[in-house]
Amino acid sequence: MTPPPAPGPDGLSTPGPEGPEGPDGPADLVITGCTALTHDPRGEIVFVEDATIVVRDGIITSVTAGGPGPGDGPAPAAHIDARGTLALPGLINCHTHTPMVALRGLAEDLPAHTWFNDWIWPVESNLTERVVGLGARLACAEMIRAGVTTFADHYFAMDEVAAATDESGLRAVLGQAYFSTQGPEGRAASLDFALRQQGAAGGRVTTCLAPHAPYTVDESDLAATAELARQHGLLVHIHAAENREQTDNSLTRHGRTPIEILERAGLLDTGTDVLLAHVTGLDTARDLPVLRRAAERTGGRVAVASAPRGYLKFGWDTTPVRALRDAGVPVGLATDGAASNNTLDVWESMTLTALVQKSVERDPTWLTARQALDHATLQSARAVGLGEEIGSLAAGRRADLVFVDLTGPHTQPVHDLAATLVHSARSGDVRTTIVAGRVLMHDRELLTLDVPSVVAELSGLLPELVDRSHGKRIQEYEG
Amino acid sequence: MTPPPAPGPDGLSTPGPEGPEGPDGPADLVITGCTALTHDPRGEIVFVEDATIVVRDGIITSVTAGGPGPGDGPAPAAHIDARGTLALPGLINCHTHTPMVALRGLAEDLPAHTWFNDWIWPVESNLTERVVGLGARLACAEMIRAGVTTFADHYFAMDEVAAATDESGLRAVLGQAYFSTQGPEGRAASLDFALRQQGAAGGRVTTCLAPHAPYTVDESDLAATAELARQHGLLVHIHAAENREQTDNSLTRHGRTPIEILERAGLLDTGTDVLLAHVTGLDTARDLPVLRRAAERTGGRVAVASAPRGYLKFGWDTTPVRALRDAGVPVGLATDGAASNNTLDVWESMTLTALVQKSVERDPTWLTARQALDHATLQSARAVGLGEEIGSLAAGRRADLVFVDLTGPHTQPVHDLAATLVHSARSGDVRTTIVAGRVLMHDRELLTLDVPSVVAELSGLLPELVDRSHGKRIQEYEG
Repeated sequence: MTPPPAPGPDGLSTPGPEGPEGPDGPADLVITGCTALTHDPRGEIVFVEDATIVVRDGIITSVTAGGPGPGDGPAPAAHIDARGTLALPGLINCHTHTPMVALRGLAEDLPAHTWFNDWIWPVESNLTERVVGLGARLACAEMIRAGVTTFADHYFAMDEVAAATDESGLRAVLGQAYFSTQGPEGRAASLDFALRQQGAAGGRVTTCLAPHAPYTVDESDLAATAELARQHGLLVHIHAAENREQTDNSLTRHGRTPIEILERAGLLDTGTDVLLAHVTGLDTARDLPVLRRAAERTGGRVAVASAPRGYLKFGWDTTPVRALRDAGVPVGLATDGAASNNTLDVWESMTLTALVQKSVERDPTWLTARQALDHATLQSARAVGLGEEIGSLAAGRRADLVFVDLTGPHTQPVHDLAATLVHSARSGDVRTTIVAGRVLMHDRELLTLDVPSVVAELSGLLPELVDRSHGKRIQEYEG
Repeated sequence: MTPPPAPGPDGLSTPGPEGPEGPDGPADLVITGCTALTHDPRGEIVFVEDATIVVRDGIITSVTAGGPGPGDGPAPAAHIDARGTLALPGLINCHTHTPMVALRGLAEDLPAHTWFNDWIWPVESNLTERVVGLGARLACAEMIRAGVTTFADHYFAMDEVAAATDESGLRAVLGQAYFSTQGPEGRAASLDFALRQQGAAGGRVTTCLAPHAPYTVDESDLAATAELARQHGLLVHIHAAENREQTDNSLTRHGRTPIEILERAGLLDTGTDVLLAHVTGLDTARDLPVLRRAAERTGGRVAVASAPRGYLKFGWDTTPVRALRDAGVPVGLATDGAASNNTLDVWESMTLTALVQKSVERDPTWLTARQALDHATLQSARAVGLGEEIGSLAAGRRADLVFVDLTGPHTQPVHDLAATLVHSARSGDVRTTIVAGRVLMHDRELLTLDVPSVVAELSGLLPELVDRSHGKRIQEYEG
């Protein structure tokens, strides 16, 4: 089902399944002995035992059962003996605001209005580039340790996040956020960032346009954004129908739901990928036909990112995953920012998606462990516009993968690997994280970031960051 | 508020705050440099920085701020430098079936009827003492690694679980389960176990009577159980109103809710502690007055154990924690068995309790992080009938505590320790687990159990265990 990948954003010519030098060329990395989570041609999950994974130039060139034979070509540059672990595609955080880890636990047990207007948006008026850069580095460290290999970030001072992405070794889809209160300069700065940083970090950065939300970006600004997306072939990443109240208020103010506003602005038909964050306030009767049409028109390029932890915490509805599936809309997994979600743990998002969807649908047979893994892999990859690049361990895909230790007492015995992964294992069981063939964490040791020094410097900046005595805020929440 | 403890179930005379030899006697263990989660006289959580915790004969004799001075008496037998960690009372698993870890992940994504009748109860007819013993050991290893120091277990072949408790070093509240289909022998065996094993494992085992549920134990059997509880001063641990359907069926069949049946049988007024597992099917109008009366009559000795993960997974309602609090009923945290819950991770139960309660009450200000910690500590201790023994780091309480590492990138920075513990930290951050002053896990290394050998032996027994070709089941689920 997956067509051969086009030349990728890494700026590398993408090799075929045999690698750049054919089957006998020396590989950069060979991984042996693991059980590998792969997908069959229909996208169903298949666990391959005693798998050998070959990597060349940051790309997987083969995944095969059984070890390499003695005559399998020249010795690779690196070999990882992964016996006793399970390899799966690196997790994808489809919607976050990485620098907000600096505010983790600052504003707790509050309704959204108070949280935004009295805490987050006043504090964010104190943001500095240095805080953003340090927060992004801390977040990258957390995600690498949690088995996340790609994140889609939507925030401010995004050049700092791009630099943190480069330094950390992660893959990222980055967009500079804007409000219409910034005037046309907000949108222009977002486009400038997107064009300037596209392909940065050795191709690991892809960029997007990042209008904040239909309640903070007006319709003409949204329409101009849609036009820019078409013109430049850029993903658009936007908050949409974050909660029921936003949808109700939108209907009162504009006579249209947030989803209808996006459609009218032309954003659901840009010919590029569109990533809608949250969508817990979906108006089933009005919005589902809109999204179904958009999915049909675009071939499923309109997707949703779901971060279920925060919805529980705010007492909101959750993303209607079943209805979206029926409409042909992929749903990727996300954590949102740590100021609301408290962690950037996509593994937890996967587990909570399974649990919460069963609960809200009152159907224990729905959102099985395998469905949860599908959201975590193929659907998340599609959601961030990298559906042909990541999300699966297969020849031609980027070598973004993690090894999970399933020998702990909490994951034994194993009757069903999918259930073990979704319902017993956790992010802390990830031992090794690899992006584009480079090892970023080995046996839980981070190799690219120095957490104590980041935390020490960030801690010194916190008193100024959390000072709200100025009475300012970056925006008013009237969602 | 806590009266001086009576001679404890450890069989030790309980020392006062100064320890058995007064303030200058040599301590068995002194812990220094941690931040300690303690409770003030009103039960509110207070974090004590740079705390020193002194342990004698398995009992905490003091918790003070600041390190011990040079003249603070003879050197202790053991010293733990716990700088950089947070000490909190060991977690309490208020309702589990430890040997069911052998069935972890076996029967997934199923409704309760199918899960019981087609999977769990047929497989449980294959149980052997060896499987129970191995499962209990594996479960104890999982719990020690997750920071659990006490568990309340309700299962079969409980002598095996008592032996595992002894070997593991954990504290446990154990009851031999019975159905009325076993005849009076079931109840008699439960009593025999309770009397025989009371105070086993050096006092770390307390016992209870364990009728299965109002739908499997008839009213005369329940009444006889209540009488035995009164006569022998035993806790009664029973499933009650596990889900809404059980309550509806009970009303149809008997004209009474499960809670009303328990009341009528005299079980809510035994003068001993009563622990009701789940209670997600509470009939607010009928049952709350019953539980309120019981709480008033008994001084809060009727408690509920809540295991929210499984309720999500089965698509059930959750335990109505707010209503129970208003009725004066303590709610302890639990995991149920791993066959439904997939983990024995009480830390996850704490986090999920906070998240799910906010969600079902649609109130983000309810079940704050501090309330969640209250359920995890004092309320859980009361729920298992050890309200004066465990659940708090205070002079006179058992020295059951864990050290948590909060330096990981996912828990930094710390703006609010309670929020960090409940919403960012996880069980894998527990570095050290201590029960009755004995270290069971040090720096994540288990000291009392050999997991690989337990898993190896258990794995060999699984094919026979999961064979359902005999067509038998231990009971019929008609909940």
